[in-house]
Amino acid sequence: MALLGDKEFFKGIGDIKYEGWDSDNPLAFKHYNPDQVVAGKTMRDHFKFAMAYWHTLCGTGGDPFGPGTKSFPWATSGDTIRAAKDKADAAFEFITKMGFGHYCFHDYDLVDEAETLSKSEKRIQEIVAYLQQKQKASGVKLLWGTSNCFSHPRYMNGAASNPNFDVVARAGAQVKIALDATIALNGENYVFWGGREGYMSLLNTDMKREQDNIGRFLNMAKDYARSQGFKGTFFVEPKPMEPTKHQYDFDAATSINSIREYGLENDFKLNIEVNHATLAQHTFQHELQVAANAGMLGSIDANRGDYQNGWDTDQFPNNTLEVAEAMLVFLKSGGLQGGGINFDAKTRRNSTDLEDIFLAHIGGADTFARALLTADAVIQQSPYESILHKRYSSFDSGKGADFVAGRLSFTDLYDYASGQGEPEQISGKQELFENILNQYT
Amino acid sequence: MALLGDKEFFKGIGDIKYEGWDSDNPLAFKHYNPDQVVAGKTMRDHFKFAMAYWHTLCGTGGDPFGPGTKSFPWATSGDTIRAAKDKADAAFEFITKMGFGHYCFHDYDLVDEAETLSKSEKRIQEIVAYLQQKQKASGVKLLWGTSNCFSHPRYMNGAASNPNFDVVARAGAQVKIALDATIALNGENYVFWGGREGYMSLLNTDMKREQDNIGRFLNMAKDYARSQGFKGTFFVEPKPMEPTKHQYDFDAATSINSIREYGLENDFKLNIEVNHATLAQHTFQHELQVAANAGMLGSIDANRGDYQNGWDTDQFPNNTLEVAEAMLVFLKSGGLQGGGINFDAKTRRNSTDLEDIFLAHIGGADTFARALLTADAVIQQSPYESILHKRYSSFDSGKGADFVAGRLSFTDLYDYASGQGEPEQISGKQELFENILNQYT
Amino acid sequence: MALLGDKEFFKGIGDIKYEGWDSDNPLAFKHYNPDQVVAGKTMRDHFKFAMAYWHTLCGTGGDPFGPGTKSFPWATSGDTIRAAKDKADAAFEFITKMGFGHYCFHDYDLVDEAETLSKSEKRIQEIVAYLQQKQKASGVKLLWGTSNCFSHPRYMNGAASNPNFDVVARAGAQVKIALDATIALNGENYVFWGGREGYMSLLNTDMKREQDNIGRFLNMAKDYARSQGFKGTFFVEPKPMEPTKHQYDFDAATSINSIREYGLENDFKLNIEVNHATLAQHTFQHELQVAANAGMLGSIDANRGDYQNGWDTDQFPNNTLEVAEAMLVFLKSGGLQGGGINFDAKTRRNSTDLEDIFLAHIGGADTFARALLTADAVIQQSPYESILHKRYSSFDSGKGADFVAGRLSFTDLYDYASGQGEPEQISGKQELFENILNQYT
Amino acid sequence: MALLGDKEFFKGIGDIKYEGWDSDNPLAFKHYNPDQVVAGKTMRDHFKFAMAYWHTLCGTGGDPFGPGTKSFPWATSGDTIRAAKDKADAAFEFITKMGFGHYCFHDYDLVDEAETLSKSEKRIQEIVAYLQQKQKASGVKLLWGTSNCFSHPRYMNGAASNPNFDVVARAGAQVKIALDATIALNGENYVFWGGREGYMSLLNTDMKREQDNIGRFLNMAKDYARSQGFKGTFFVEPKPMEPTKHQYDFDAATSINSIREYGLENDFKLNIEVNHATLAQHTFQHELQVAANAGMLGSIDANRGDYQNGWDTDQFPNNTLEVAEAMLVFLKSGGLQGGGINFDAKTRRNSTDLEDIFLAHIGGADTFARALLTADAVIQQSPYESILHKRYSSFDSGKGADFVAGRLSFTDLYDYASGQGEPEQISGKQELFENILNQYT
Repeated sequence: MALLGDKEFFKGIGDIKYEGWDSDNPLAFKHYNPDQVVAGKTMRDHFKFAMAYWHTLCGTGGDPFGPGTKSFPWATSGDTIRAAKDKADAAFEFITKMGFGHYCFHDYDLVDEAETLSKSEKRIQEIVAYLQQKQKASGVKLLWGTSNCFSHPRYMNGAASNPNFDVVARAGAQVKIALDATIALNGENYVFWGGREGYMSLLNTDMKREQDNIGRFLNMAKDYARSQGFKGTFFVEPKPMEPTKHQYDFDAATSINSIREYGLENDFKLNIEVNHATLAQHTFQHELQVAANAGMLGSIDANRGDYQNGWDTDQFPNNTLEVAEAMLVFLKSGGLQGGGINFDAKTRRNSTDLEDIFLAHIGGADTFARALLTADAVIQQSPYESILHKRYSSFDSGKGADFVAGRLSFTDLYDYASGQGEPEQISGKQELFENILNQYT
Repeated sequence: MALLGDKEFFKGIGDIKYEGWDSDNPLAFKHYNPDQVVAGKTMRDHFKFAMAYWHTLCGTGGDPFGPGTKSFPWATSGDTIRAAKDKADAAFEFITKMGFGHYCFHDYDLVDEAETLSKSEKRIQEIVAYLQQKQKASGVKLLWGTSNCFSHPRYMNGAASNPNFDVVARAGAQVKIALDATIALNGENYVFWGGREGYMSLLNTDMKREQDNIGRFLNMAKDYARSQGFKGTFFVEPKPMEPTKHQYDFDAATSINSIREYGLENDFKLNIEVNHATLAQHTFQHELQVAANAGMLGSIDANRGDYQNGWDTDQFPNNTLEVAEAMLVFLKSGGLQGGGINFDAKTRRNSTDLEDIFLAHIGGADTFARALLTADAVIQQSPYESILHKRYSSFDSGKGADFVAGRLSFTDLYDYASGQGEPEQISGKQELFENILNQYT
Repeated sequence: MALLGDKEFFKGIGDIKYEGWDSDNPLAFKHYNPDQVVAGKTMRDHFKFAMAYWHTLCGTGGDPFGPGTKSFPWATSGDTIRAAKDKADAAFEFITKMGFGHYCFHDYDLVDEAETLSKSEKRIQEIVAYLQQKQKASGVKLLWGTSNCFSHPRYMNGAASNPNFDVVARAGAQVKIALDATIALNGENYVFWGGREGYMSLLNTDMKREQDNIGRFLNMAKDYARSQGFKGTFFVEPKPMEPTKHQYDFDAATSINSIREYGLENDFKLNIEVNHATLAQHTFQHELQVAANAGMLGSIDANRGDYQNGWDTDQFPNNTLEVAEAMLVFLKSGGLQGGGINFDAKTRRNSTDLEDIFLAHIGGADTFARALLTADAVIQQSPYESILHKRYSSFDSGKGADFVAGRLSFTDLYDYASGQGEPEQISGKQELFENILNQYT
Repeated sequence: MALLGDKEFFKGIGDIKYEGWDSDNPLAFKHYNPDQVVAGKTMRDHFKFAMAYWHTLCGTGGDPFGPGTKSFPWATSGDTIRAAKDKADAAFEFITKMGFGHYCFHDYDLVDEAETLSKSEKRIQEIVAYLQQKQKASGVKLLWGTSNCFSHPRYMNGAASNPNFDVVARAGAQVKIALDATIALNGENYVFWGGREGYMSLLNTDMKREQDNIGRFLNMAKDYARSQGFKGTFFVEPKPMEPTKHQYDFDAATSINSIREYGLENDFKLNIEVNHATLAQHTFQHELQVAANAGMLGSIDANRGDYQNGWDTDQFPNNTLEVAEAMLVFLKSGGLQGGGINFDAKTRRNSTDLEDIFLAHIGGADTFARALLTADAVIQQSPYESILHKRYSSFDSGKGADFVAGRLSFTDLYDYASGQGEPEQISGKQELFENILNQYT
C-alpha cells in the first residue's frame, strides 16, 4: 500500500519519523492483505471495509466537556458546496490510499443541511452528482447510506417516534431524499439507526404509540425505496441507550422482535456495532450470533467500547481476542448478508495529527484480518469443530433425534427418564475451548 | 393485622421492643389495607400478594463466600416428610399472619429431592396432598408453581437447552411432575425461569440448536398441561445473566421474541422481576410496559436490586419512587393478566431474627400499597393524563390520523413537509412530569 | 415565592396553564421553606442553595449526537460584554425569583474567553465589577468559583497534568485569574474539578509524573490564594471518568488520598456530586460519609444520575429515598463545612421552555427539603439512633473499650476468645432500619 | 513438563484424546518456559506462579443457584485429618506436575474448622507439620497465607469491623493462629482480604468506628507477627463489593489511603486481583500502576472477570491484550515486591473433568508468559519508550524543570504564559501506542 500519495489533503502522512523503528513502517498493514484468500474468499470480499464519512471527515473531536480539536484541511472553504466537494475529494483520497473499497454516509455528512427542506435536497443532489463521478473514476462503492434524523433540534423528541406528526412527516421527507441519494449512488444497503427513537423519560411517553409509528414509518420507507428500484437490504442498527435514556432498538433480539412485529422480516436485517453490543451488556459475538440465527446478520459497524466506561467511545478495534471470537461466528454463519465492515470509529479527541486517522484504520483493519486468520485456523486446523459437534451428538440419532423431529411428548420424556438413572456428567470443557482459540491467536 | 399468633413457628414475633417507639408498632402495615378500594378494586385483588417458598422458608442465607446463617425452627426434623410438612405449616402460618392470600413454589422447595425420579415424585405427591388440606382450611391459594431445573448438578449445562438429550428428557419428566402438582393444587399459573438456559461460554455453544430445543420443550409442556385440564397462564421470567454468563430470556423484549418465534403467544405471558429488569439495564417500569404493550403483562416478582452491585440481591422493595413509576404502568395497563405480586425477595444474610421476615414483607407490601395510592392519585387528581394525551394529539385527527390509518405514503409525507416550515418546538416537560409524580408520592 | 416578576428575561413564567390543576400551582415550593427551622437551623442556612451558571444560563442542550436546542433570551447580543451582562442580569433575576442566595461559576461561564490570556483577563475583570454591583444590590453571594481548564482544545491532554509544560503554565495563569475573580467577589470557596486530569489511555501516560504535577499545581494555587487574602476552603470534586477514560480524582477516598499525599489536608475538602458518586459505583450517601469521616465534607453538587445509563446525566434531584439517606449522613455529620447545595443539574435537551428551568429547580429544592425533614424526624422521633448506638455498645466498656483504647494485643484477643464460646448471633436488622426510614419519608 | 505422573489423585490426566489434534498436546505449555530469561530474570522468578488451595482443591462449583458439581478424589475420606492430608498430597502433586513453585492458602482450606477455637488450632498445627515435610521434600514454598474471616456465620456482620467486640476478638485469635501457621511454613507474605469488612447497608453502620477498628486490628496483627519473627510483607487485597454491598478496601487508591491513615505503610503493600480491578471499574493495569506509584505493588491474584457480568467470575486469565498491558506496567515498575502470581481462579461449574484444572492453569500461565514476552519486546524493540519519554520532555529542562523542582509560583506561571501565545497542539498518539502493542502481541 502506497500511502504517501501526491494528492492534496493527506500529503504529509508518513513524514513523522519514530526513532528506533526504521525497519518497521507503522503505516503499513501487518495482517490485512486484500488479495489473500481465507476460507474460499479474499479478505477484500469477506470484509468490504468501508470508511465512515461522519467520524473520519466530519468529527472534529467535540465531546460533552469541550468543542472540537481537529483542524481538517478539507473543511476550510466558506462555500458550502465547495467544502462538500473538498470533503468528497478527501474521502476518496483516503479510501483509495487505504486500499478500501467502500464508504458509508448520513445525508448531512455529505453537505451541510440548508435552512429549508428543498434547499437541502438541492444541495444533496449536487453533491451526489459529484460523488457519482468520483465513484466511477475510482471504483469505490457506497456500502450504505442513511439519514441523520437525530442531530437537528427538531428531532429532540424523536423522528419517526415524535409525538408531533409534523416532525414525523419531516423525517419521512428527509429519509425519502436520503433514499433517493442512496439509490442514485448504487448504494448496496440502507441503514436505520434511530438516534432519538426511544425515550428520555417513560413518564411522558406513550411507548406503544411511538413504536407503532416507527413500524409504519419503516414500512413506508421500504415501500418507497422498492418502488424506486432499490434492490439492497435495509438494516436496523441496535443500540441500547445514548443519546436517549432508552432506545427502542435496544439490542439484536429486541430489534428482531420489532422487525417481525411490523412485518419487515423479508427486507430488513441488522447492522451490528461492537460498542452498541457491549453497552447492552452483550459481547459482540453474541449479537452476531443472535442476528445470524434469525438469518439477519447483515453488516458490521466496527469499533470497540471501553469496558470500564458507560458510553459510546467508538474507539478503533484493537482487541484481537474479542474480534477473533466474533470472526468465529462470522465464518461459521457464512459471513455478512449484503453488508460489510464499516469503521464506525473515531480517533481520540487528542489524536490531532492527520496521520492518526491512518494509524487508526490500519490498526483496525489489521485486527480484523488477524482475527479472521485465527478463526479460520481454529476451524481448519484444530479439533474445535469436532469437539463442538460431538457435544450435541445425542440429538443426531435415537430418542434425541425423535425429540428434534417433534415425535415425543412430555409423557414420552417422563417414561424415558424414568427408565434411565442419573444422566452421565459431561464437562463443558470451556477452558479447553478457550485454550484452543488462544493457541491460534 | 394480628401478628402475635399462638401457632408454633413464629410465636415470638413482636417480642423485641424498641425504646422510644411505643406508639408506632413496627410490625403493622402503614399503607397496605387489603380491603381498601383503589381504582375500582381492593388492594387485595390488585396485588394478590404471595409468599415465595424458596426465599422465605428454605433460604438460610448462604452466598458465594459463606454458608447459611439462619436456623429455622421448621427445619429441624431429620425425617424428610415431617420436615416438609413442618415447612408447609410454617408457610401457611406466615401467609395467614401476614394477611396474604397466595404462595408460589418450586417443586423441590416443597420437599427435598430424592435419589430417583420416582421416589421424588412420590414425595411430591405426599406433600401436595397435605397442601391441598392446608389450602382448603385456610383459603390460601397457589399463585403459581414452577420446577427447579437449575440447582442440581445434572443441569449444569442447561435443562431444556442441555447438549445431552438424557438431561433434556429428565428435565421434561421433572416439569411434568411439577405441572401435575400445580394442577392438583389449583395453581393459577405456571412459571418457567430458565436458570441454566443460556451459556457460560459462546465458544462451546450451539445457540440456535439450544434455543430450538427450548422452544420444543415449552410447546410440549404446554400441550401436556392443557391435556391435563390446566386453564391457567404460563409465564416466562426474563433474566439477563446469572448464574450463566448469558441467559436466553435476557429481558422482556427478548422473551417476547422467543415466545412468538416458537408459536407460544396464545398461552404464555411474562413474569417480570424488578431485580432482573435492573440487571438488564432496564427500569422495572420499562419491562412492565414492554410486556403490557405485547399483551403479556402476566405477573410480578417483587424485590429490588442494588444499583451499585451487579448481581441479583433480591432485596425487599423499599424504593417508593421506583415502585410508584411502576404502579403508573400497572394501573394504566389494567393490572396483571392472571398473576400477582410475589415477594421473590430475601432478608439479608445477617438478618437472622425470625421477626426480620415479617418486617421485610411488611415493608415490601407497604411500598407497593403506597405506590399504588400515589399512581392512582396522579391519574385521578393531577393533569398528568391530560398533558400526556395532549402531547400525542396531532395523531388524533387530520394528516396525523391519516398517517396512523395507513393512508399516507412517503411521497405524501414529502409533499406535506415541503409545504410546511420548520415544525414548532414543543418541550417534553420531563421535569414537570417528575414533579407531578413526586407531589403525590 | 412570587415567581411572576416584571423583569426582563423570565417574564412569561407561569403563563402556561395546566387543565385540572387550578388549585395547586406547579411553580410553588411544596417542602422548601427557607425560614423553617430544622435541627436548630433554617433550611436556608442548612442548604445555601446555589444556581450553577453553566447549566442554567449557558447550557443550550448539546450532546454528542446533536447541537443545542434552547434559545435563551439573554444570549442574543452580538457584543460579548453586553451578552455577559445580560447573562448576569438573568442570573440574578433567576436566583432572586427562586429565593436562593448563592451562585457558582467557571471563569468562562461569566464571559466568553478571548483570543489571548490578557484579553480574557480584561473581560473577566469587567464582568466581575458588574457582578460586584449585582451582589451588593441583591444580597446574593458567590458560593464558589472555579476555572474551566477542560473545554478548550489546549487542555485536550490535561491541564495541570498536561505532558507539555506550556499548557500547565497556561492553566496556572488561568486559575490565578479565576482565583482573583473569586476573591474579588468574596467567594466563599474555590473548586477544582479536573475535567481532563486523568488519562485517555494508560499506554501513553506517565501517571506518577502527572499526579505529582497536579500536587505541585494545587499547592501553588493555594499559596497564591492565601497570599491574596483568600480565607475560604478549596474543594476537590471527585469524578471517576468522563470526559477522560479515567479521572485521577476517581472518588472521595481516592481524592482524600491525594490531598493527604500532597500535604493539602489543612486547606482542601471535597465537593461531592451525586451523579459522580453513582458513576463510581458508590451511593451518594457513601461518598458523603467517606468525606465526613475525614473531616472533609465541604460542599454538594446536587443532581442525580440515571442508574441504567453510564454517563453524567446531571438530572435534577427527585429521588426522595436517595436524598433522605444522604440527609441522614448530612445531619449526623453536622452539615457542610463551608459549602452549600449547588444545583449542578440541567433540564433535559428537550425541555425547551424557560418555565422548565424553574420547575426543575423547584423539584430539586423540594426533594432536598423533604429529605431533610425525613432525616430529622428519623433522628428525633424514631428509635433509629438508639438502635444504632446499641449495635456498637460492646465497645463502650469492658474489653471492647480496652480494644479501642489500644490496651490489647493479639495474644490478649486470643486469650479472651479462647475463654469464650461461639459469639452470640445478632441480627443486623437492615430491613427494620429501612422500614424506619420509609416510615418518615 | 511431564504431566502424566504415576501418583494417585491426578493419574488419568492426558487420557482424553482429541481427534485431529495429534501433533499438538493440549496439556503442554506453549509460552511458559520457567527457565527462559526475560528482562534479566527467568520467567520462574518473574512470576512465582502459585496454586490457590481454595479454588483448586476445595471449590466444588457451588454458586447461588446450585450446589457443587465436582467430585474430588482427595475429598473422600470421612476422617478430617486424613482428608486434609490427602488434600495436601493432591496440592503438592498438582504444583509439582505443573512445574510451579508456590502455593497460597486460607487457614480453613488446609483443614476443616472444628467446633472450638482450640480444637481448630490443634488441627491446623497437625496439618502444618505435615506441610512442612511436603515443602521440604518438594522444594515448593508458601507464597502467602491468610485467614478466612468471612465464611463462618459468626462473621456475617464483619470480622475486624464487627459491631460486637466478641467477634472482633475471635477474628483476632483466628488470625493469630493463621500467622503462626504462615510463619511455621516460612510463608513469604501474609494477606488480608476483608470479605465481610464493609457494609450491607449504610443505614445500620457506623463506618468510622468500623474502619478505625480495622486499623487497630491490622496494627495488632503486624505487631504480633513481627514479634514472632515474621520478616515478610503484609498485603491488603482490594475489592469493591461482594459479598458485602460495599467493601472498605474498594480499590488500590482507597486501600493505600487506609494503609497510610493507620500508619501501616512500612509493612503493608497490595495484592492486586484482576477481577477485583474490573469490578471497581478499573483496568487491571490501572490498579497495578496505582500500587506501583505508591511503592506498594506487592503481589497479583491472577484471574479474569467477565466484562458483561457484575460479579466475581474468577475465570482463568486468557485475555492476551489485557495481560500484555499489565505486563508493561509490571516490567516498568520492576516487578512485584515480595509476592508472585497466584492463580486465584476456578474452572467453571460445568468443567468437571480433573483434566480441566490442568488445562485452565496451563492457559493462564501461558497467557502471562506470552504477555511478558510482548511487553519486553515492546520495551526493547519498539520506539515505545522513546516516544513516551519525549512526550514529557518539557519537564526535563528549562521552566518545566523549574516547575518540577518547586522553583515557580503561580505568578511565575502567569508571567510565563502571558509571554507565550497559544501552546502548540501535540497529538496524544493513542492509536499509535495501541498499534505498537498489538504488533508485538
